[in-house]
Amino acid sequence: MSKTQPARGMRDFLPADIRKREYVIGIIKEVYESYGFEPLETPAVENLETLTGKYGEEGNQLIFKILKRGEKLEHSTSEKDLSDLALRYDLTVPLARVVAQHKNDLPKFFKRYQIQPVWRADRPARGRFREFYQCDVDAIGSSSMIVEAELCAAVCEILERLGFEDFIIRVNHRKVLTGLLETSGIEQNKSSDALIALDKLEKIGFQSVHDEFSQRNIPEEASHKFLHIIERGVDLSVSIKKQNESSEKNENFNEKMYELLDNFMDNHEKGQEGLRDIQKVLGMSKDIPTILDITLARGLTYYTGLIFEVVLTDGDFRGSIGGGGRYDGLIGMFGKEQIPACGFSLGLERILVVMNERKMFPPELETNSADVLVTIWNEESVGESLKLASELRKEKLRVLVYPEADKLAKQFKYAAQINASFVCVLGETELAENKVTLKNMRTGEQETIDRDSISEKIKI
Amino acid sequence: MSKTQPARGMRDFLPADIRKREYVIGIIKEVYESYGFEPLETPAVENLETLTGKYGEEGNQLIFKILKRGEKLEHSTSEKDLSDLALRYDLTVPLARVVAQHKNDLPKFFKRYQIQPVWRADRPARGRFREFYQCDVDAIGSSSMIVEAELCAAVCEILERLGFEDFIIRVNHRKVLTGLLETSGIEQNKSSDALIALDKLEKIGFQSVHDEFSQRNIPEEASHKFLHIIERGVDLSVSIKKQNESSEKNENFNEKMYELLDNFMDNHEKGQEGLRDIQKVLGMSKDIPTILDITLARGLTYYTGLIFEVVLTDGDFRGSIGGGGRYDGLIGMFGKEQIPACGFSLGLERILVVMNERKMFPPELETNSADVLVTIWNEESVGESLKLASELRKEKLRVLVYPEADKLAKQFKYAAQINASFVCVLGETELAENKVTLKNMRTGEQETIDRDSISEKIKI
Repeated sequence: MSKTQPARGMRDFLPADIRKREYVIGIIKEVYESYGFEPLETPAVENLETLTGKYGEEGNQLIFKILKRGEKLEHSTSEKDLSDLALRYDLTVPLARVVAQHKNDLPKFFKRYQIQPVWRADRPARGRFREFYQCDVDAIGSSSMIVEAELCAAVCEILERLGFEDFIIRVNHRKVLTGLLETSGIEQNKSSDALIALDKLEKIGFQSVHDEFSQRNIPEEASHKFLHIIERGVDLSVSIKKQNESSEKNENFNEKMYELLDNFMDNHEKGQEGLRDIQKVLGMSKDIPTILDITLARGLTYYTGLIFEVVLTDGDFRGSIGGGGRYDGLIGMFGKEQIPACGFSLGLERILVVMNERKMFPPELETNSADVLVTIWNEESVGESLKLASELRKEKLRVLVYPEADKLAKQFKYAAQINASFVCVLGETELAENKVTLKNMRTGEQETIDRDSISEKIKI
Repeated sequence: MSKTQPARGMRDFLPADIRKREYVIGIIKEVYESYGFEPLETPAVENLETLTGKYGEEGNQLIFKILKRGEKLEHSTSEKDLSDLALRYDLTVPLARVVAQHKNDLPKFFKRYQIQPVWRADRPARGRFREFYQCDVDAIGSSSMIVEAELCAAVCEILERLGFEDFIIRVNHRKVLTGLLETSGIEQNKSSDALIALDKLEKIGFQSVHDEFSQRNIPEEASHKFLHIIERGVDLSVSIKKQNESSEKNENFNEKMYELLDNFMDNHEKGQEGLRDIQKVLGMSKDIPTILDITLARGLTYYTGLIFEVVLTDGDFRGSIGGGGRYDGLIGMFGKEQIPACGFSLGLERILVVMNERKMFPPELETNSADVLVTIWNEESVGESLKLASELRKEKLRVLVYPEADKLAKQFKYAAQINASFVCVLGETELAENKVTLKNMRTGEQETIDRDSISEKIKI
């Protein structure tokens, strides 16, 4: 007898789960479409070489690899000989591949959304799965900060339409981080190590980040200078996270933060460039809760410009429900040409967890599977019941036919179990008179009516 | 520089592809929902042991297996040690697993549909891919032939709504096949071999099927007797395939076929049972083009009762676009209890191929990505353009903002390239007067109008 659980870290979705997932995905699609983004899908299985070297060392370890077939396996012991295919790890790298492949068929500015599962061989934990959906939106072909502003606006609209009121978009810039690192005296070859450590700040605290810096041989003085400016930024932002902030307060805060960073690295050209980008985006996003947060680093190595992350500020839930940034160098890894790009990914699973906890789903989602159950009177009249069902379906009703000529009581019991709104009985008398007995399962009311007036009664 | 093609046998879907796929999937979902089927999804990755032994030897070879992680690989050379996970091969086995797992939470009769990709390590060929979608619908918990009749009706409705006019549902029964085999004198332990050979009849012809029978040591006399009755059935059905049959002609044909089989195995109880099932289903399906076709065997081993397949009769396309059957023994492989089940799977990829060839998609699918493109006048007025876009989106329009303050001619050129219906220009004069210049890209007409009357103009 085979096991019946899904594989470790994987989930089955029963109808009630799917309806919730489709509700959220529906809103995400609708908003992205209204911004002119178009749908794209890529295969679950990619050539392994497409994925390797794109996600950093930790990411590489989490890629699910597919075993080569039969004959090729003989005498192979190294992992490299065993696999040349892998499961999709995110939606950004496949997009970069597709854009490089179809460059000539795609419009100059290509805006796409993509909602598909990805797979990571992570250790499963509460809320962390090995298969999960990402909802990505990316704009390809422009370096303008209008792109960033529109991405933030779209994400903001989605979250508002889903009913979230406590989200903030944290914004930072890879060039600003470079400016802070270099002004502090941290060398370029250490900067990626430093950012990976910084990215964990919220989880592990300043002391541990400092320790990681020491382990990576970052000089004490530089480490101290860098962490000091970060700490001043945190002090500024702590105040904001504690309050239910109005956008005006966000603006004041952002100005103070801007000043702090501007002063700290006033001679660093790249850093200043980053600050100007941030200023532009924040200027175009005054209606949106955005804050400049210098502790935001984002783990992925391919970001080159603005980075962002959406966090919820109320309640138990900690961590982001989405994030993204500009990656002007990634598509060039697949083609001769560098093409600028910027994107945002919403984490469907986390959004669902919070919406479930906060009971944010509209009540009509807790729906039954059928508007009406058509019963079977006896073997002889099955055809008539099927015909009635077909007539009612033409009236746009969802109609279940009870599949067996069971006792009527049993059929009614089933209707109650599946929460059907109405039950139709088509007995000998009804058939003779071209009528139907209709029972309203909510009110218990029952009446025998003309066959062609059923759908009217049900729709009311 | 990484390769930009998708992996072998895999496909990227650009926006125009996705719109067609979503159109077909939308109709399939709508019809299945109207029959009271509910959505279910299962993970792409299953425990390998869940899949092995369910698809026959040929199927087993085509399962994509996932490589175990790092440390576990050392010293392993056998394939069994290298993998304990695999990619979903079909949607029926995962359903059986889910039903066994959630038996107590699901209604007595559980009707579900599932539309997800599956993966098979098949040799890619024209129209054959390694990742493809299946659209499955299954009814669990009843042995009644009402289930089969409703499945046929739902599939028929889907195909009609998609615009197909030349489909026929071929119907056969595993017990009828058993009856024919045993009456011919083919022993039970050879019957699965015989059916696999019979399944290829249309492709390889009678002589080759006969040769396969010999190779499998089926005695000449039994082989001859069996193939003779099959041949008589084919002679009957050839006439039908050649004509554009009315359902009345189908009925006459089915009666003749029934008689032929009834006479051939009049003492075979199981065979007669199968014939009675077929008679019931055909009796309930008089409005549907169904024919009793004894050459239909279906490759999968888990079928136990009625089997069906939809084929198109006109044009170049050969082969089925869907099929299914009753499998009363599969769920029991995952649980203590045998639960009857019957299902139908539509092949999305084949449906799409034919619909593309026959140009069956509604013209509005060849749509542009945006109703209106909002241009950018200069860097200073970007905020105003974004605001206008936001206003128009509230009017349910799909609005693209040109991302850069390019020359206006360039922005119009882009609007033409992406086939936008309208372009909005928001220059200094327009801003001062709270107006917008709107160009209809279809007619070339251009007018300067009040800002709040744009959406009216566009929607007309």
